[in-house]
Amino acid sequence: MARFPLAPGSTIGVLGGGQLGRMLALAAARLGFDVAILTPEVQSCAVRVAARAIIANYDDPVALESLARAADVVTFEFENVPAVVVEQLTAFGAQVAPGARALAVAQDRVDEKTFLNGCGAPTVDFQAVDSVADILAGLDRLGAPALLKTRREGYDGRGQTWVESHADAAAAYERIGVVPAILEARAAFRRELSVIAARGRDGEVVAYPPGENHHENGVLRRTRAPAQVTAALLAQIETIAARILTSLDYVGVMGVELFELEDGRLLVNEFAPRVHNTGHWTLDGCEVDQFEQHIRAIAGWPLGPTTPLAFVEMENLLGPEAHDWLALAGEAEARVWLYGKGDARPGRKMGHVNRLRPLKG
Amino acid sequence: MARFPLAPGSTIGVLGGGQLGRMLALAAARLGFDVAILTPEVQSCAVRVAARAIIANYDDPVALESLARAADVVTFEFENVPAVVVEQLTAFGAQVAPGARALAVAQDRVDEKTFLNGCGAPTVDFQAVDSVADILAGLDRLGAPALLKTRREGYDGRGQTWVESHADAAAAYERIGVVPAILEARAAFRRELSVIAARGRDGEVVAYPPGENHHENGVLRRTRAPAQVTAALLAQIETIAARILTSLDYVGVMGVELFELEDGRLLVNEFAPRVHNTGHWTLDGCEVDQFEQHIRAIAGWPLGPTTPLAFVEMENLLGPEAHDWLALAGEAEARVWLYGKGDARPGRKMGHVNRLRPLKG
Repeated sequence: MARFPLAPGSTIGVLGGGQLGRMLALAAARLGFDVAILTPEVQSCAVRVAARAIIANYDDPVALESLARAADVVTFEFENVPAVVVEQLTAFGAQVAPGARALAVAQDRVDEKTFLNGCGAPTVDFQAVDSVADILAGLDRLGAPALLKTRREGYDGRGQTWVESHADAAAAYERIGVVPAILEARAAFRRELSVIAARGRDGEVVAYPPGENHHENGVLRRTRAPAQVTAALLAQIETIAARILTSLDYVGVMGVELFELEDGRLLVNEFAPRVHNTGHWTLDGCEVDQFEQHIRAIAGWPLGPTTPLAFVEMENLLGPEAHDWLALAGEAEARVWLYGKGDARPGRKMGHVNRLRPLKG
Repeated sequence: MARFPLAPGSTIGVLGGGQLGRMLALAAARLGFDVAILTPEVQSCAVRVAARAIIANYDDPVALESLARAADVVTFEFENVPAVVVEQLTAFGAQVAPGARALAVAQDRVDEKTFLNGCGAPTVDFQAVDSVADILAGLDRLGAPALLKTRREGYDGRGQTWVESHADAAAAYERIGVVPAILEARAAFRRELSVIAARGRDGEVVAYPPGENHHENGVLRRTRAPAQVTAALLAQIETIAARILTSLDYVGVMGVELFELEDGRLLVNEFAPRVHNTGHWTLDGCEVDQFEQHIRAIAGWPLGPTTPLAFVEMENLLGPEAHDWLALAGEAEARVWLYGKGDARPGRKMGHVNRLRPLKG
């Protein structure tokens, strides 16, 4: 059984071989850890910087046992890790962080919003949907249009559709595949904010300054951080983040997406129990970035400072946009991150660029 | 034949599996490159973060051919790469940077000082030594005591001894092994400075602000940067660095060690044709650190900014000092780097810590 804090030379196991796993691996290496990646992809970008790779499906029990034996703590880069995987890893003696509870809550939008409201983090009004009748009842209560989303899976705008009216209910349900769903009231929001927060094994909670996010076609285009927020709003955001992390007995970094409404109210949209695209600005904007912070937290190390050193505009490089690497590398204020992915197909997250400017002035 | 600038996804070959190779690999990964490490060590710390490892002796022709085929450019983390290795790599079609000339000059202290003086970079007076008679003649000209060093090899204070007097000449020659040597005049120096500079494939030269170095038992203990220097001294240092890099038609990062004498004169002690321990402060003190800068240079990318963001005191963690990782991780202003080496034997460079404070105030 692993003993915390983990000494350098210990092994961090990561489920997932994408860019988040890659940046976690780089951060872990800085602190002297080895990394073992479990991924079904033979040519994943995280494996190329890791000490060890286990190429197998996530639910392969032999692979999970192998990872559990190799790793002193196991974490993940995506939230849709099946519950049975965490159970098996735990049965094989692995410490999994963040734990099963955070995953379970984050995987189901109804459970997530129910949990959030229960711990004092307000969300939009919603209705659980298992039938067209539920949608109709929801429209009665929430008003039209309302947003219909699958309860599980779905991200970057996939698995969701607007229900324009009662007459659209059945067709909308068809559009998302007639699966368990959630109907959400429309929120007249002024802007989307997010906060990256972390909780250590000793219960300490820290939060980076919130960022302001802009999406295009349902995919994150850019985050500007620190966002301009009043002291009152900042306090509210930090309180919400701390409540979520503490209520889940969470260990690691979490991304919490928030809506600031036209009327000034703050709602939680959702949380991701992992490092988060809207936290990439910390890679160049803070001394300890979200990836090192996550490794520190799950390894039982003291958390690092979250003070911003610069104002950062983080922009995702999607698909062929990454072909601009040479021009970006020549921009004095642009810090380029490229993920080592081969195929720049449209919309694929190939890298990002952090453009820095001084905090004052 | 590789075409520059190298596109992301290209492979950077590195001779050497130590901490410099490891940090080069991490920097290369950030820019989307793969790394292939050639090292004779089965458990090297650089291999653990590289996409590919070739475990063989540096002069193994099969390994060199394999590296030349795998890598679009080949670099090294140590300066004592045998000339024949560079010749073989080149014969197998590899681009090697920095090139054979810089290595040859850096490997021989007499050639190095002759070159430096020839390009307008002043050094201490010296005498080439192939016999006790040469030492005696050198003492006549340079005065006693004088410093006797092997012409080749030797670092961190090894392979050198003081010659106290004419009577000590024969014994001193024995102490360094009766090998080709150099006798250096004693310099009354006030402090040791160093500058990390880089030259791109287009001939552009940039330099980081100089650091001030402190050694203990011949090994670097700490570097403080930016060092306090007058504008005139800074200009002199930058001119010297540019002359060295340009004269060698150098591509990559170089560390240049300098002595500031009591009388205010500046002498070059030596240069290292590679990333350098006295440049580790840039990892947390600059947006683009020396490792990314080296990768940019050898890949034919534009060089990055060298502006300091903070005042940094870099301290090496030698041997068991690395066992203090937990206390160091808890220091808010300390950024910890651990190299993933297993055996913390006394004096071994296990990691370093960068302590930051604001530039002004």
